[in-house]
Amino acid sequence: MRVKLLISYDGADFVGWQRQPKGRSVQGEIERALARLLGGMVSVQGAGRTDAGVHAMAQTASFEAELNMPLERLSYALNNLLPLDVRVLAAGKAEDDFHARFSPSSKEYRYFIAPGVKPSPFDARYVWHCPGRLAYDEMALAAGTLQGEHNFRSFCAKSQVVSSYVRTIYAAEFRLAKSEDAPEPLQFLAMRGELYMLRLLGNGFIYKMVRLIAGALVKLGEGKLSHVEFAQALAYEQPQPPAPAAPPNGLYLWKLAYLEKDV
Amino acid sequence: MRVKLLISYDGADFVGWQRQPKGRSVQGEIERALARLLGGMVSVQGAGRTDAGVHAMAQTASFEAELNMPLERLSYALNNLLPLDVRVLAAGKAEDDFHARFSPSSKEYRYFIAPGVKPSPFDARYVWHCPGRLAYDEMALAAGTLQGEHNFRSFCAKSQVVSSYVRTIYAAEFRLAKSEDAPEPLQFLAMRGELYMLRLLGNGFIYKMVRLIAGALVKLGEGKLSHVEFAQALAYEQPQPPAPAAPPNGLYLWKLAYLEKDV
Repeated sequence: MRVKLLISYDGADFVGWQRQPKGRSVQGEIERALARLLGGMVSVQGAGRTDAGVHAMAQTASFEAELNMPLERLSYALNNLLPLDVRVLAAGKAEDDFHARFSPSSKEYRYFIAPGVKPSPFDARYVWHCPGRLAYDEMALAAGTLQGEHNFRSFCAKSQVVSSYVRTIYAAEFRLAKSEDAPEPLQFLAMRGELYMLRLLGNGFIYKMVRLIAGALVKLGEGKLSHVEFAQALAYEQPQPPAPAAPPNGLYLWKLAYLEKDV
Repeated sequence: MRVKLLISYDGADFVGWQRQPKGRSVQGEIERALARLLGGMVSVQGAGRTDAGVHAMAQTASFEAELNMPLERLSYALNNLLPLDVRVLAAGKAEDDFHARFSPSSKEYRYFIAPGVKPSPFDARYVWHCPGRLAYDEMALAAGTLQGEHNFRSFCAKSQVVSSYVRTIYAAEFRLAKSEDAPEPLQFLAMRGELYMLRLLGNGFIYKMVRLIAGALVKLGEGKLSHVEFAQALAYEQPQPPAPAAPPNGLYLWKLAYLEKDV
């Protein structure tokens, strides 16, 4: 039976989604819990490969296994075995040809930025605190230009070789986040009007693409990158990323849409 | 010069306040930052010894050193060297006879409980999720009886030998927490009416005392401990703690009051 899982995690203490020789991975924790539950090795595929420190509100994963319990009990049983920073939100039956990684019709990422450096020890895991004043209106203007089909080669890690760097962004916005736009640990910042959000909805994203875009927008907001330079990068007239990648802690894999019935 | 620091920390990734042979301690991190800043060993004393996993909204610490910078720049300089889960909120000059640990005239601890087990990976570090229904009114009633002078020997770890187990509780309450009562990571739960708080203000607390009280209140709320048994423990007629200690993640050292001008 092919099973889909909807998963949320706090990425701060993980080496990322993907299993690695060393360190805690989300994939590894879920495979270990499934092995304990079902009594055998299970290989789990995720829809998005989040990096170390990157969070997921709703990651989708799928696996093939014979269940020894009703499907309705699977999330409860898994959550009992999983560490508290990974939670299974839902489990469902998938079509036989469903593959979490290749099937999503769109993905949404959100990147959260808080202005200034506030002396709180509680939110550094969840948001990028940017010291200094940023020109938010200029950042919103530049973010809007991301919409449409672009060659994102300037916005991906140089080492990434993929068959095509062209991706379509269906929606791109940078604005003040409302409480309901934000993940739980940042809702108090949103409530106080101290939280900004970059929201990108697209048909696919290349490794580090969102963080390189967020980094470029902040550099633009600081007045150290012009709109022309940003546009050149977006047109791949400037092969280097225009700014270093934003840190992973502000990034959330927010939502995955599937043409078939969602998990 | 004697210096006072007001410090806040997320205790989840620490072995506790106190320096220990192994693991990250808050005291150790601050002493290391001071050593780098001032170029010599500095011994820092804290007002409360929080356990592994226990948080502090406002811990007070003091040390003796010759500063090589204006006092106004000390918090900024320390925060630049400290890990992000420890923040110095303020620094000030202390009287020569000031000792953070022995001088507080009152201490406030808060313990936060959220009903039910919600599938969120983001708050397990910060609150105790109690599954099942709790009789909150009964818990509030029992919490009220803590006010006054009591022998708290039934509410401290058996291994603790102290000269007196008598402490005075100036204020004790258990109730729904409002947003402004809660630490930042729990304000969204408070906003939704899903957060309860035990608030204890007293002249001193013995090791594990607050967590043993919180554990007993939850057992009472579950209907597994009677008001008579709770009262017997509070009168030290029952030498064993009436319930296991509540987990550390829900506990916050909230505020310390000093008779002299506060830090």
